[in-house]
Amino acid sequence: MPTPTPKRVTLLGSTGSIGTQALDVMRAHPTRFTVTAISAHSNAELLITQAREFRPAVVVIGDEAKYETVKSALAQQPETEVLAGAAALAEVAARPDSDIVLTAMVGYAGLLPTVAAIRAGKDIALANKETLVVAGQLITELVQEYNVKLLPVDSEHSAIFQCLVGEEQNPIEKIILTASGGPFRGRSRAELATVTKAQALKHPNWDMGAKITIDSASLMNKGLEVIEAKWLFGLRDDQIDVVVHPQSIIHSLVQFEDGSLKAQLGLPDMKLPIQYALGYPERLPSNFPRFNFLAYPQFTFEEPDTATFRNLALAFEAMRRGGNAPCILNAANEVAVAAFLRDEISFLEMSDLVESCLTKVSYLATPSLDDYMHTDQETRRMAQTLVGSGTKSA
Amino acid sequence: MPTPTPKRVTLLGSTGSIGTQALDVMRAHPTRFTVTAISAHSNAELLITQAREFRPAVVVIGDEAKYETVKSALAQQPETEVLAGAAALAEVAARPDSDIVLTAMVGYAGLLPTVAAIRAGKDIALANKETLVVAGQLITELVQEYNVKLLPVDSEHSAIFQCLVGEEQNPIEKIILTASGGPFRGRSRAELATVTKAQALKHPNWDMGAKITIDSASLMNKGLEVIEAKWLFGLRDDQIDVVVHPQSIIHSLVQFEDGSLKAQLGLPDMKLPIQYALGYPERLPSNFPRFNFLAYPQFTFEEPDTATFRNLALAFEAMRRGGNAPCILNAANEVAVAAFLRDEISFLEMSDLVESCLTKVSYLATPSLDDYMHTDQETRRMAQTLVGSGTKSA
Repeated sequence: MPTPTPKRVTLLGSTGSIGTQALDVMRAHPTRFTVTAISAHSNAELLITQAREFRPAVVVIGDEAKYETVKSALAQQPETEVLAGAAALAEVAARPDSDIVLTAMVGYAGLLPTVAAIRAGKDIALANKETLVVAGQLITELVQEYNVKLLPVDSEHSAIFQCLVGEEQNPIEKIILTASGGPFRGRSRAELATVTKAQALKHPNWDMGAKITIDSASLMNKGLEVIEAKWLFGLRDDQIDVVVHPQSIIHSLVQFEDGSLKAQLGLPDMKLPIQYALGYPERLPSNFPRFNFLAYPQFTFEEPDTATFRNLALAFEAMRRGGNAPCILNAANEVAVAAFLRDEISFLEMSDLVESCLTKVSYLATPSLDDYMHTDQETRRMAQTLVGSGTKSA
Repeated sequence: MPTPTPKRVTLLGSTGSIGTQALDVMRAHPTRFTVTAISAHSNAELLITQAREFRPAVVVIGDEAKYETVKSALAQQPETEVLAGAAALAEVAARPDSDIVLTAMVGYAGLLPTVAAIRAGKDIALANKETLVVAGQLITELVQEYNVKLLPVDSEHSAIFQCLVGEEQNPIEKIILTASGGPFRGRSRAELATVTKAQALKHPNWDMGAKITIDSASLMNKGLEVIEAKWLFGLRDDQIDVVVHPQSIIHSLVQFEDGSLKAQLGLPDMKLPIQYALGYPERLPSNFPRFNFLAYPQFTFEEPDTATFRNLALAFEAMRRGGNAPCILNAANEVAVAAFLRDEISFLEMSDLVESCLTKVSYLATPSLDDYMHTDQETRRMAQTLVGSGTKSA
């Protein structure tokens, strides 16, 4: 077989957990991928190191105050353009010299660059689930209109996507997202009241960034994934189940109309879904450690405790309400997690804050992209005020 | 969508466990399937009942002594031809008025009708694993030559087949066949020495015919499946693993070169793989009971005990030797199971008998179809002699 032309990859969020692992994948397959652009929110130092290794056509540093640092560090590398700021990110996402955009930035910030990339006809390797949570309908309509591929990177959604390959003619009966249950599985609300940031940041199975690790501990991550799955796979609200599987080996399952279930399994390692999304439809050889049943002689399953972990119930409720409700949920949660990480609110107050915002922020049934931006801003202001006032409950 | 033309199905072995369940599937989908031929080894009564319901173009009763019974019972049904004997089976398998032949007869008897059906250009829904065990190379070459589909019905192989859909460009790294471990899992050889036929016929998860149930208790069934898988999926001997999974929910797994595993899961119900093979590539809706994790909160896995259950080790050895060794293994096992079911030999003597025959029957590296027939006959004679003499060990 002739060697295929390397895929030209724009990597937004190259210094985070997904970003660095994506570069590991591309480093292992130099004939298959070239890195045309990388971006970081604020980690200029690592961005510079990455730029020196991969020599992309452009780097973007989100924090404009760090532009000069990056620019001068790359002065001896004239083939690499240096830009700064959010607008530059959206502009770079749409440039013609790349085939696929991996969106690995954190939170709501992923929305506009993703929209720009789709409108420019790029395939999207979606690691930024918030994009679909906030504006799933709009994004999936754009994906259809511009006929691009939306390839999930989240391990659960990658699992489902892998199970659906070759099943295009067969309707989904339901999907089952697995959840590790996080570090606080089995705890009561009384026990959760006093957990610390350090405890919440210790995920039993996955090594990830701070935001998603807190979201995993609170089950908001699973809630966001439920909404993400609805849009990615075109499901009704009642077609999505969650089961807690503490070993995190079965990454998720699809049930078809004949009753058959398909699952994707493996060790918890984000490199696999990243590589799958970048290489799709081809599975590239890897030296990732292999799963062995003898090391995992037991898989267990239990129902998620949504009475204790309110966030998951709130996410299901926001999905059922639709409109801008998931956008409110997401914005309130981003403020809540940041406040928790600054020790300003307690673990349980995070879901109180989300619930308050879902009650207080105006509901819109059919929001435009502008409406999403306003909802996001209004919710953040509201949530910030509630954090400041010490009143997190509705 | 317009209703597709019904698939015309020849069902060889219609009165056994697979056969009756296949008729259940076709009964549930009368617009999708028509039954053009059915056959039974000796159960004339049920064959007559089935013929009256499905009104096929032809029925075959294997036991020629029962021809008159069947013929006269169907005298009022002139559209249904009645035939008897093994030669009629191969002739009917090749008739032009069917699209797919489901081979659900027991043991070596499946080989010649399957060959005849392939040569007539029929797709094969293969429930008779012995066909591939005995003559895998020959059958897979014929399948290629006549460009027909070989659709597995065994639940494990159906699982792997389902996981491979859409993965045509991605090489298999290995497959993992799951095994329930049977009713005697965990027993020692001393305990196995005295087990009875009644105990061996009680499978913990699957309700099946007597031959396969005994094979499951002795792990020979898994051994035959290993050899079947080698040919179905074109694998090297070292690409096939077996893991014991007593709950029988994960029906088997495929591991790809990126390290990702895909599995098919469900309640142990043969109707699902039967329907999948008949409906492929479409998954037809079903009212089969659905799997629920809350009813199976724990999956467990362990290594198969091949020191106690010698048959599995013997099957791997026969596969590695190749040539007519799997044919010897299969013929000796068929005699052994029949003798065990007649209380002529003990449970452990079954694998002794197989091992003796593998040692004593002449090895042929590249057997023809005739050689397979001679090997089968020679092995049966040898095995029968050993049973009669009371000397089962080599």
